[in-house]
Parts: sequence; C-alpha cells; structure tokens
Amino acid sequence: MDDLITRTEPYGYTLPLSPSGTAAMVTPPPWHFSGEVVMVEYRADPEAVARHLPPGLDPGPDAGAAAAVWAEWQWCSEPGDELGAPERCRFAEFLILLACEHRGAPMVRCPYAWVDSTVPLMRGWIQGMPKQFGQISQTLPVRAGRAGPPPGGGGTFTGTASAFGQRIARGTVHPGTDDAVPPPLFALPLAHSRLFPSWVPGEEPVTGLVASRVTDVTFTGLRSGPAELWLTTDPAFADLASLAPREVGEGTVFAYGETLLGGRPLT
Amino acid sequence: MDDLITRTEPYGYTLPLSPSGTAAMVTPPPWHFSGEVVMVEYRADPEAVARHLPPGLDPGPDAGAAAAVWAEWQWCSEPGDELGAPERCRFAEFLILLACEHRGAPMVRCPYAWVDSTVPLMRGWIQGMPKQFGQISQTLPVRAGRAGPPPGGGGTFTGTASAFGQRIARGTVHPGTDDAVPPPLFALPLAHSRLFPSWVPGEEPVTGLVASRVTDVTFTGLRSGPAELWLTTDPAFADLASLAPREVGEGTVFAYGETLLGGRPLT
Amino acid sequence: MDDLITRTEPYGYTLPLSPSGTAAMVTPPPWHFSGEVVMVEYRADPEAVARHLPPGLDPGPDAGAAAAVWAEWQWCSEPGDELGAPERCRFAEFLILLACEHRGAPMVRCPYAWVDSTVPLMRGWIQGMPKQFGQISQTLPVRAGRAGPPPGGGGTFTGTASAFGQRIARGTVHPGTDDAVPPPLFALPLAHSRLFPSWVPGEEPVTGLVASRVTDVTFTGLRSGPAELWLTTDPAFADLASLAPREVGEGTVFAYGETLLGGRPLT
Amino acid sequence: MDDLITRTEPYGYTLPLSPSGTAAMVTPPPWHFSGEVVMVEYRADPEAVARHLPPGLDPGPDAGAAAAVWAEWQWCSEPGDELGAPERCRFAEFLILLACEHRGAPMVRCPYAWVDSTVPLMRGWIQGMPKQFGQISQTLPVRAGRAGPPPGGGGTFTGTASAFGQRIARGTVHPGTDDAVPPPLFALPLAHSRLFPSWVPGEEPVTGLVASRVTDVTFTGLRSGPAELWLTTDPAFADLASLAPREVGEGTVFAYGETLLGGRPLT
Repeated sequence: MDDLITRTEPYGYTLPLSPSGTAAMVTPPPWHFSGEVVMVEYRADPEAVARHLPPGLDPGPDAGAAAAVWAEWQWCSEPGDELGAPERCRFAEFLILLACEHRGAPMVRCPYAWVDSTVPLMRGWIQGMPKQFGQISQTLPVRAGRAGPPPGGGGTFTGTASAFGQRIARGTVHPGTDDAVPPPLFALPLAHSRLFPSWVPGEEPVTGLVASRVTDVTFTGLRSGPAELWLTTDPAFADLASLAPREVGEGTVFAYGETLLGGRPLT
Repeated sequence: MDDLITRTEPYGYTLPLSPSGTAAMVTPPPWHFSGEVVMVEYRADPEAVARHLPPGLDPGPDAGAAAAVWAEWQWCSEPGDELGAPERCRFAEFLILLACEHRGAPMVRCPYAWVDSTVPLMRGWIQGMPKQFGQISQTLPVRAGRAGPPPGGGGTFTGTASAFGQRIARGTVHPGTDDAVPPPLFALPLAHSRLFPSWVPGEEPVTGLVASRVTDVTFTGLRSGPAELWLTTDPAFADLASLAPREVGEGTVFAYGETLLGGRPLT
Repeated sequence: MDDLITRTEPYGYTLPLSPSGTAAMVTPPPWHFSGEVVMVEYRADPEAVARHLPPGLDPGPDAGAAAAVWAEWQWCSEPGDELGAPERCRFAEFLILLACEHRGAPMVRCPYAWVDSTVPLMRGWIQGMPKQFGQISQTLPVRAGRAGPPPGGGGTFTGTASAFGQRIARGTVHPGTDDAVPPPLFALPLAHSRLFPSWVPGEEPVTGLVASRVTDVTFTGLRSGPAELWLTTDPAFADLASLAPREVGEGTVFAYGETLLGGRPLT
Repeated sequence: MDDLITRTEPYGYTLPLSPSGTAAMVTPPPWHFSGEVVMVEYRADPEAVARHLPPGLDPGPDAGAAAAVWAEWQWCSEPGDELGAPERCRFAEFLILLACEHRGAPMVRCPYAWVDSTVPLMRGWIQGMPKQFGQISQTLPVRAGRAGPPPGGGGTFTGTASAFGQRIARGTVHPGTDDAVPPPLFALPLAHSRLFPSWVPGEEPVTGLVASRVTDVTFTGLRSGPAELWLTTDPAFADLASLAPREVGEGTVFAYGETLLGGRPLT
C-alpha cells in the first residue's frame, strides 16, 4: 500500500471518496469487456417502441425491430487488476434492444437492462444505461463432457432473467454449425439518456442524450438458428410487457469483446 | 393499470425512463424508514478522520468520535405501496459515522456504507451517501422463544458485515435494562458529498456538499451497555481500515423511524 | 482453540467430519427457534391433499384444511453460540401445511417448504422436513416510524416466496387489534417422512414416518383478520399448484418460540 | 404435464415427495458434469492430513500431497432437461483434495467442499461429499476481448471462495502454452464417508466409506504453470486452517467432463 497517493482531501472517480482514492466503487474508463452472448431477435409493437424513445430518437425504417440479449461478462479497468479478483470482475446481464435512428443514423436503444452485480449497475447509470438488479442465467458452451452445447454450434442455449423474485424473460437459441454474421442490433451504437436526479432546491437534474464510444470490438464464434422468446406479462412490469414479442426471429450465440471509452453528446 | 398516465415521451424520477413512469428504479422523496439499530461508539485516529473530511467540514472539538452502525430497515414511498412487496421494502445496512462540524455546527459524516439491496444503494448516491453492496446481518430482538435477546434489554446483539466475500466489520452490544438516550452521532444531521461523474467531453461532474432534511424522527426502546468492535485491516480495504477503533465505547440498540424529505446545500 | 478435543479419527454430527468435530455443518439437537409468523389459512382440493399424504396419514374430518406460512427465524443450538453470528442464526421460511390425522389423532403435514439458508435446509432433511432453497420475504412489525405495521394490530402484513427465480406464493393479512388464538394448523404436531436415498448397490434408502418432538412452545401477540393468498399455477411447480387455494380463510400474525428436541416414529 | 404419472402415494428420489414425483429436489443418477477447473497442488501438514482420514484410509506414500480446486460447472440428469433451465444447471465449487490410499490403492479424499447452489449441495451429501454453501468465483478463459486469459494458455486464472461472509481461500495459476497432463489428485477415485444422522431413539445413523463410480471422464485444454495459494487461518475455520499450504506446487487449468453413476462400498 506504500505507493498509494494520499491527497489533502478525499477523492475518487465516484463515491466513496477516500484519502487514497482507491475506495471509489467505480473505476474511471476505459473498461474492457469479454462476454458470451445469447441473443434473440424479435418484432415488438412499433407503437410501444415509439413510446420508449426519447425526443431525438425515432423508430426509423425498421420500427419494431428488437432483441433480447443475455451476456455473461468479465470486465476490467485499464490496469486489469479486477481480473485477479473474480468476485469483482464477473457479472451477468439481460437487456432489451430496440432499433431506432438519430438524425437518420441507425442506432440502438436499450430501454431496460438487468445485471447481478452493483459495480456494473452503477457504471451503467454513469453512461445512461438503465441497469437494475436481477438474477440472470444462461447456458455456456462447454469444452468437455455432456452437460452443455459445444462451442462450434448445435445444441441449445437458454437464458432466463428474474427481478424481485419474478421471472421476466426466457429465451432459447438452437444454433447451426455455419458461421453467422454479427446481429445489427448488437453491432450498432447505443443511444442512452443520462439521468441523475436533483436533490437540493432549485437544482436541475443531469440529463442528456449520449452515444457510447467503444473500440476494439470483436465477434467470435457466431452461430445462428431458430429461437424462442418469452417476456413477462405481469402488471408489475407493465412497461416491459408492452415490448413483448409479436413475432420471434433468429437467435445468435457468440463471444464478444469491446472497450468502452466514454460518451459523446447526441445533438 | 388503467390509471397509468402515459406521456408522449418516456419519463421517470430515475432511470429507466418508461411510458408510464412506473419503471423508474427509484421513487421520488419523501421516503419513510423504520429500523432496528445496533450501534457501537468508538474513537478513531483523529488524523485519519480528518483525511476523510472534504473541504467545508472540520473534525471539530470531538475529533475522532466515531460509530459503527448496523440497521435493518423497512422503507416506503409516500403512498406506501412498497410495504405490500416485502422483497422490495426491506434492506440491511452497515455504516461508519464520524463526528465533524460545518461552520461550527456539529454534524456527522458517513464515509462508508454498505447495503444489501440496490434501490437503497442508488437512492443513497442521489443523496450523496456512498452506499456499496455488502452482506449485512444483525441480531434482532425476539418476542418469543430463546433464540435471541428480549426487546427490553439484556442479552447480546451482534452485527456483521462483508463485502466481496470478505468480512469487514463485527460489533457486539450487551444492553442493560435502563432507558438510554439517543446517541449523538445518530441524532445529528448528516453531511454528504454528492458526486456523479461526467461522461461527455467538457462536462463537469455533479458535486456538492449537502445536508439531509429529515422529519418525524423517532427513537424507541433505547438500551445501552458495554460493546466490542472489530474493523478489517485487509489492504483491500485500506481506507476503511485507517478508521479502525483505537478505543471502543458504549453500544446502544434501539428502534428508529424517520422520513427523508430531500437535501439542502451546505455553503 | 486450545480446548478443542481432537479424536483419533474425524467426527461430527453431520458432514463434514473433522478432527475437532466443529466443522460439522449441522449441530446436534436441541435447537431453539424464535420467529415472526404471517399465516394464511385456506381450503385446498381435498383430493389433491389426499394425494400428498403418505401411507399412515389420512385427510381426516377436516380434509382440505391448509395454510400458507411465512416465518422469519432466529435459531441457536443449546450453547447459543450461533446468536453471536447473525450471518448464521437467521433465516426465512415459507411452507405449506395440510390438516391430516394419524391413527385418529389430528396432525399436520408439510408437503413443501422453502428456506433461504442451507443449514436449516439440511437440518430439515434430517427431520424429514422437505426444505428447498428459495427467496422468502415478509413484512415485519415496526416499533418506530411509518414503514410498517405496528406490533399491536392494524396495518398489513405480506409474504412472498420465489424459487429458481419464479414467484411461487404471495399472501397478505390485515390483522385486527384483538387477541387471537393460535391457529390449529400451527399448533398441532408435524408428521414428516424421512428419506435419504441409497447410494451403493443393494442398500435400502432411509425412510420412515416420524413426528417432531418440541417443547417450550410460546405464542405471543396473536392478531387475526382478513387475508388473501395466491399460489403459482406454473407447470414447473405442478404438484404445488395442485394445492392452490379454493377458498381463503383468516390470516394470523404472531411471534412464536419453540425448542425442537428430536423425532419419534409414527407406527 | 399430461404425461405425468400419478401414483397412489407421493413419491420421489428425494424429498419433497409428491403425487407426480417431479417435485423431488434431486434427480436420480446418472448425472453429467461439464466444468472449467482451476487447480493448485500443494503440500499440507501430513499429520493434519492423517487426522482428516477416517478408518480405512491411510495417508499412503505421498502423505501431505493436497490440492485446492475451483470448478465452474454445468450439470444435467440423463434426460438433460436441466440444460434448458440455466438457473438450475449451473454452479460453482471449491474443494480441498488430499492424497490417500485404501488397502494400498491410491485414492483421493475431499475433506471440505463448498458450492453456491443447494441441489448440488444435497446431491453431494447423498454421495458422502461434504458440500457446504459458499460464494465461489473464478476467472474463465475468454474467446474475445481483453477481459480475461485466452483458452490456449498464458494469462492468469484466479479462484476465490468465501463462507458465511469470510474469505476462506484464494488461488492463482499462471499457465503456460504447452499441453499438460491431468493432475493425479483430480484423476484418482474419490473416497467419501456417507453420514445421515439418526433422528428417532434407537436408530443408527447412515455411515459408510464409499467410492464414486464415474465414467466418460474427459480432460481438455490442460495448461500448467506457477501458482499461489492462500487458505484462511481464522479460528472459525480451524480444521480447514490446519490443512493450509506449507509449500505450493504447480497449478493447472483445464476443461473437464464426467458422468457420475453411483457409489460402491469400500471394504
């Protein structure tokens, strides 16, 4: 600990502030991500999609195109220290993606996301990604034995997600053995709405439409095939339920890597 | 769900924004809290305390006065709907409190806090309370049987807290049967530092020293007695460890209620 | 640790066996329990109840009488050491109770139970109590503040239970302020079926109908009133679903204590 | 659900018994397992190892040879249904292995094991494997991106394990890129002590020294290299602590598959 720099006042990229700055819950970007993804494309009600888009985003020509995505991640900061603490560097995520466009450019909107770890949750809110806490599970490909699908295609991949003890989503993909291409809804840039509420009288909340800036994007082992998808219809999740599938398309499984650098305003 | 108001754009007090606004993870204040508290007062290194105070706060005449607090909470918003969803309205908390003053007025600083639920975690960050995720357990008083201390005094109350699979704190209180008074470090106003990082180039982070505005404060069943306290010395929690007890004072157990209205700037 | 007795071979009341015997996951009885209970009485399909009773138990004259019970417990062994480790001594439980009789004597059958901690789970199996793992939450009475019902009656108590990310039960009680009597289904002795599978060829599994032997039973603060109850209809829980309520009766909340001594065969 | 067979009395491989038998928590063998393993070989105190061996097992010529193993598993029963429920078919495990012999034949003893899921926990006890509940994390190899080591060797793999909120183990392996051989302590048969306590007066507990019968064992992608290992010295885990490493050997990472058929008595 000898090389910790102690300032005269507590500091940190986020709370908690501390003398050495190392108590901060979230590290500053860039952040690296490596994940295994199970993704199901589907068609949602275009009007429900439109109601989920903030000013500045439009449904665009493919209104209603949507996807449900399960991803099991490892992440680390630039120095990579988190990889030595697997209780910190792993998390699972489930999210909904909606096709949209900004000033005519195709983009993707994530209206809802759930993760099973709080550091990614808070890091999401800094970016404008609306992550909540959930229980997320997915089948992983296996390199040995019979308790899972092989990495090369074939078999079945399933994802499930729950929030507050209620199942909210279940999806299944039956990948073939041919190479597939990256699904557009995963490859296009994300458009997020930042929101940090005001707390003292007269203060304005932080708001702003932003795009994520990512680099070193890698797709590996893409396999596609028939898929199924179910989303909750429970009134406790009414807004999510309005995005339930009207038609289920193809599913894709793959490994994915990226580095998230920061954001840029969408104006 | 018929009475949900759907605006033309998604909205909410926090993320996620949604057509009905009800998908927001956090509800707007006021928030009501009812809790059972196990609290141990102690003396920390005054210099370590000073290093944890931001500009605007001073250690004051009682530099080094500190407390470790375990609290098991129920909470609800003004309509009280959360009480019908116990999987949402309960959480456990562990926090450190430090005596300080602002412009000569005695206040309390919370440098570190852990909760076991993400809605309180995020609500904490809105206020400037540096809540992180942990596993927190405490003995509750019991009204029947032999597996716990009675509410009226006697017996032993213990609290433990862990983060990322490591024990960070353990405290014990042996309360007597006489009425006790509210511990000053729990009764004085909290001074928090808000911090929401910037994300797009040129943006400034949200910062600001604020005090919480609370009302309807109630203490019930206060009992005090001898106490023990241990805080981690693990280098992974070096800043917390610098606040470890040099001397352990009295412990107090009690039930507590308050309503949190919002914040005010400390200038 | 000096006073640990080391035998020449590893031992313990249960696995793991160890040189000092203290590594055993479960301590030997007696075990003391103190809990807060939310209980909803209801009528189930008498035929479904009958299908859940093993040979030796009959539905009896009140066939179909059933209850859903949420309980939040503290427990300890005879020396009480666990009370100093709140991360070990607390758990939450949800269970179904069915009226039945054995040789004409009224008893209670617990066909399904869920707990959120593994020591009580395993201890249940030793007794023949079919505990599985779940997420269980219930409203607690509060002694201060507005975030919960008072201990003396009035307000609303809710319990929820989930297993493998799916909600399986939700119940609500609106207790009055008058004293109530202990619900018979909670006060009668439990009749359990022990079952430990065989593992080596030719071995017979452990089986046997047993009753629990309890002492020092205490009910405190009993309050009754109208209630609601919902059980899952999901095919993944088809057997549980067959016991869903046809009619919902009264609910009762109370504090409860007992000491569990062991079992006796029902012959 | 139409094809469920309802008997006249409730049944199941384990508790809970139910009309269709499908409510049983554990399915009957065979069980298939596929896992990613991080393993560190070490030398423990031979006397402490001897104290952990039951009558019938001896330390043998390599007394003190031990290993710490992290494994992240998928599992399924013969029909494979669990693979469609990832919230059921995945678990993480940490265990200690000790070299021993039975009647001169080299075997392996597992004195302690922790898993993060209760079905594998209970299945372990049926076999005589002393599984307890813990939080277990390990680095996984990644097929894309920079947040983890590649499957082919290089990088660093770490495992951590905690129980009741306390860290009990941490290990690290730095694998090379050359093919390695299966570590003997992972490849030899396991010798377990079954133990199910008695409950009614006069009953004898189930006991017995057994070996596991496995088939279809597969090792894939074996890579070895330097390693580090730490085990807790906390008095709350004194028996485990007595097996702490005196010398740390090589570490190996690999994928592994097996099918567990049942047990056979060791006589």
